[in-house]
Amino acid sequence: MTVRPENEHQARLLALLRDDGPRSRAELGDLVHMSRSKVAVELDRLTELGLIENAGLAASRGGRRSGIVCLATSLRFVGIDIGATSLGVAVTDGELRVLGHVSEPCDVRQGPEVVLGLALSLIDGLRDRGLMPAVHGVGLGMPGPVSFREGVPVVPPIMPGWDRYPVREVLGRELGCPVQVDNDVNIMAVGEQHAGSARSVDDFLFVKIGTGIGCGIVVDGGVYRGASGSAGDIGHIRVAESGPTCACGNVGCLEAFFGGTALVRDATAAARSGASAQLAARLVEAGELRVADIAAAASAGDVAAIRLVRTGGRRVGQVLATLVSFFNPGLIVLGGSVSGLLGHALLAEIRSVVYRQSLPLATGNLPIVLSELHDTAGIIGATRFISDHVFSAP
Amino acid sequence: MTVRPENEHQARLLALLRDDGPRSRAELGDLVHMSRSKVAVELDRLTELGLIENAGLAASRGGRRSGIVCLATSLRFVGIDIGATSLGVAVTDGELRVLGHVSEPCDVRQGPEVVLGLALSLIDGLRDRGLMPAVHGVGLGMPGPVSFREGVPVVPPIMPGWDRYPVREVLGRELGCPVQVDNDVNIMAVGEQHAGSARSVDDFLFVKIGTGIGCGIVVDGGVYRGASGSAGDIGHIRVAESGPTCACGNVGCLEAFFGGTALVRDATAAARSGASAQLAARLVEAGELRVADIAAAASAGDVAAIRLVRTGGRRVGQVLATLVSFFNPGLIVLGGSVSGLLGHALLAEIRSVVYRQSLPLATGNLPIVLSELHDTAGIIGATRFISDHVFSAP
Repeated sequence: MTVRPENEHQARLLALLRDDGPRSRAELGDLVHMSRSKVAVELDRLTELGLIENAGLAASRGGRRSGIVCLATSLRFVGIDIGATSLGVAVTDGELRVLGHVSEPCDVRQGPEVVLGLALSLIDGLRDRGLMPAVHGVGLGMPGPVSFREGVPVVPPIMPGWDRYPVREVLGRELGCPVQVDNDVNIMAVGEQHAGSARSVDDFLFVKIGTGIGCGIVVDGGVYRGASGSAGDIGHIRVAESGPTCACGNVGCLEAFFGGTALVRDATAAARSGASAQLAARLVEAGELRVADIAAAASAGDVAAIRLVRTGGRRVGQVLATLVSFFNPGLIVLGGSVSGLLGHALLAEIRSVVYRQSLPLATGNLPIVLSELHDTAGIIGATRFISDHVFSAP
Repeated sequence: MTVRPENEHQARLLALLRDDGPRSRAELGDLVHMSRSKVAVELDRLTELGLIENAGLAASRGGRRSGIVCLATSLRFVGIDIGATSLGVAVTDGELRVLGHVSEPCDVRQGPEVVLGLALSLIDGLRDRGLMPAVHGVGLGMPGPVSFREGVPVVPPIMPGWDRYPVREVLGRELGCPVQVDNDVNIMAVGEQHAGSARSVDDFLFVKIGTGIGCGIVVDGGVYRGASGSAGDIGHIRVAESGPTCACGNVGCLEAFFGGTALVRDATAAARSGASAQLAARLVEAGELRVADIAAAASAGDVAAIRLVRTGGRRVGQVLATLVSFFNPGLIVLGGSVSGLLGHALLAEIRSVVYRQSLPLATGNLPIVLSELHDTAGIIGATRFISDHVFSAP
């Protein structure tokens, strides 16, 4: 049974110690606007609960030296990042510093038993390395719509066999601790907010371009999920009347035109049709193309590869231009594996369309940047997400 | 100097009395989860401040009969609704019941001195009718971007001469009471939330189709304004690469294709080209066409008029379909003068596109309805808006 704070004051003190590290009792009192004696009561209680520890004495501020406290060094959070073709697991301490991070190729279509089984064995591996005396909470992101309240995926298009599988319940039972489950894009947005480019931004969009395309929406510092939890599912916005069929069964979805799957499909066609000698050579050599091959071809000046990146960036940019006029975010962060591989070539195209097509008032002060967290946004977001839950008052 | 509540408890009691009407002291204690003696202290203080009054005794609940209290009957809020071509002013009591409502044709392009001068003289007229012993606050909506914090319009495209005019300051000085200023669409969304179809809905979109097109975004019960206050300005979303020039100077904006101005332009062209005998006859008769003429022609079966409504509805629907996939609202309310005149013919077209093109998860439980408030959404929203301010704790 994971111990949790008993009231709002304790919850605020824990969040402060998580985000800013060890602090003296006097400083904490100032930060939460509580008297020294009242803070002392709450800190003593958190010590009794085993959530914080003493960590020496602060320099004198003119009187008696104040004791420094920190989060209990035994606290551990686990983040699980389920991708379409990979699985990442990390363990952090209470301050969300990553102590160990492993990831393996894993096809999500193998279904929940196989994928969650692998996640549990990766957690066991981290435990065997002595990194995890106990687990205090697990956060998990998965690539599909999730009922946040129930902790289950809901009709996820690229995850056959997962519909309404009780992910939260199963993991909670196996690990004996609180588990929270959300869409991977929301989780990555939380990661960007905690440790990435969005640290001080309250209203921003995190756009993930990986195998598919999705968007995490942060409003007033919190993830906005929408009336039925599908907010941000921009990969299935209709951008054309006709076109390739999408994994969701419809025609004309943004994701059917761009994203990892579409890019590999179009690059393979370019290789086969003779439009790109470089991609054709790579296809013969490797038997298949990956997004990394297209990124390499584009940076080497391959015209067909460059055209694919530009056309895709323009399509994404057109959708984002509409969303910027509507939502007037303070920042857009581009993440996901495809954004990471294509980098500035993709960013430049998206920026140019958004800055040209959105309202001047909305783009006047709108940075559009690449994620700096790369493949750790999901892991960091997942542990932040569960720590918010564990550190919340009942 | 308008009197305001001194603390959160008093603010909550005032909001309850505004939204639910007179209540016994016992009921109020139950509703705010305060002891009878603590509630009594706050209510006595509100009585001293002149914000509430006693209104008789409630039926016995088994013991001593509890006194009923209500908002002071002398409380008055004023709502001002500046449209592109009309000006409305209303006065309400503390419970936001409209006591008097006048409106006059008024071209906003005459500039702030003329328009605000007319507003002040309409207020004087209401005062002369004995409706307004004093004014406790004024809410104002105007058809352009507003810096909510500064209370000034910011580069409003259809309001020459208004840029950064200190509307809030000028009216506050003239009337000697608090004034709050916002974009008309945000104000109308608040009106729908207070008294219209959106009463119990926390996440919804209010789409105004009048002379132009705009959208009020309500997130978690509050108006979402975006990073620089331009959120919801969907009239200038680029829907085509070419097309008529918009009032904002760009090409391809939604508003340049549909809305009152575009509709009249296209209907006049249809009348002149011989595409519509009915519109041609009306044009000869009246010298110009209005949206009401197009609505009449469409309901009478005029093919050209019907086509204009359908094409416009489809364009609006396509933009809304994208926004629905992105934002997953719980409700869409269609308001504004053009929506009111075209009614179900327009609604049907918009519904059909949104339900067909948005994500099933987002449209599974998404009512799209016409506003029931018609031309009072702005007035009600403006008084609700200022009363929220006046009834808030410092």
